[in-house]
Amino acid sequence: MRSSSLATMNCSLAQTVEVIGDRWTVMILRDAFFGISRFDDFQRRLGVARNILADRLAHLVAHGVLRKRGGNSRRTEYELTESGWDLVPVLVAIAHWGDRHRPNPKGDRLVFRDPDSGTPVQRMSIRSAGGRDLDPRTLVLTRGPGLDGPPATEGESP
Amino acid sequence: MRSSSLATMNCSLAQTVEVIGDRWTVMILRDAFFGISRFDDFQRRLGVARNILADRLAHLVAHGVLRKRGGNSRRTEYELTESGWDLVPVLVAIAHWGDRHRPNPKGDRLVFRDPDSGTPVQRMSIRSAGGRDLDPRTLVLTRGPGLDGPPATEGESP
Repeated sequence: MRSSSLATMNCSLAQTVEVIGDRWTVMILRDAFFGISRFDDFQRRLGVARNILADRLAHLVAHGVLRKRGGNSRRTEYELTESGWDLVPVLVAIAHWGDRHRPNPKGDRLVFRDPDSGTPVQRMSIRSAGGRDLDPRTLVLTRGPGLDGPPATEGESP
Repeated sequence: MRSSSLATMNCSLAQTVEVIGDRWTVMILRDAFFGISRFDDFQRRLGVARNILADRLAHLVAHGVLRKRGGNSRRTEYELTESGWDLVPVLVAIAHWGDRHRPNPKGDRLVFRDPDSGTPVQRMSIRSAGGRDLDPRTLVLTRGPGLDGPPATEGESP
């Protein structure tokens, strides 16, 4: 995380992976989404070494995805910021893939539900402007105005 | 990745993060999605050390997300499997977050388009069964039949 060159890569994915591209970081965000806020609670749930947890929490605060409340004490609480909440679609997409491709024989583990109806949310998918589900194999990728550098490879657009 | 305990964690996210929870792994999947298939092409594009790249490719093959064609030679090609293609919504969600929260001043870097109309795909969001966008803050999480172990914390459902 700290010694990587991804931070300087002008790529929408690399920029995000610089923030969340660590297994513990994703698990911490999951727990923050579940309402966990205190160091000791994260530590107990995840079984992660305290120095690693402290490092990852500081990383997420530095990147503006978590914020601290209550100063530096045992009462410190960590909560998702606006940009942290915006990561929830990433987490839900990750959870859906896990339940589909690494299923528990007893069924889904986590069910995300619509607060009004109580029914499960739709499986995360890529949709056209008109709302049709698109097959990832057919998606067309183009270079946006923010992308410099050479094209990916001969014959490929991005 | 190899010394982690996430593989045994009965969590939909942990199971996925066990597969993709490494920064280089996500970048390799991005490039595979872009149509890159040869070791040397991944290496040149990513600027990653060859031993790390070989390790990550073997990891993705072992987890059934990439498959090899052409045997073990310089002609070996790596391509996404069915479960690999199913990771594309995760990649698109990651890219959208990056373009929103780590924007390039010139604009979006990657644009995913509907192959029929050419218009950009919708921003990845969480939707109710009826197709309404749901605010992540209001989502209700419940424990599915595949989840054992204690509840997350007092007062939390998952």
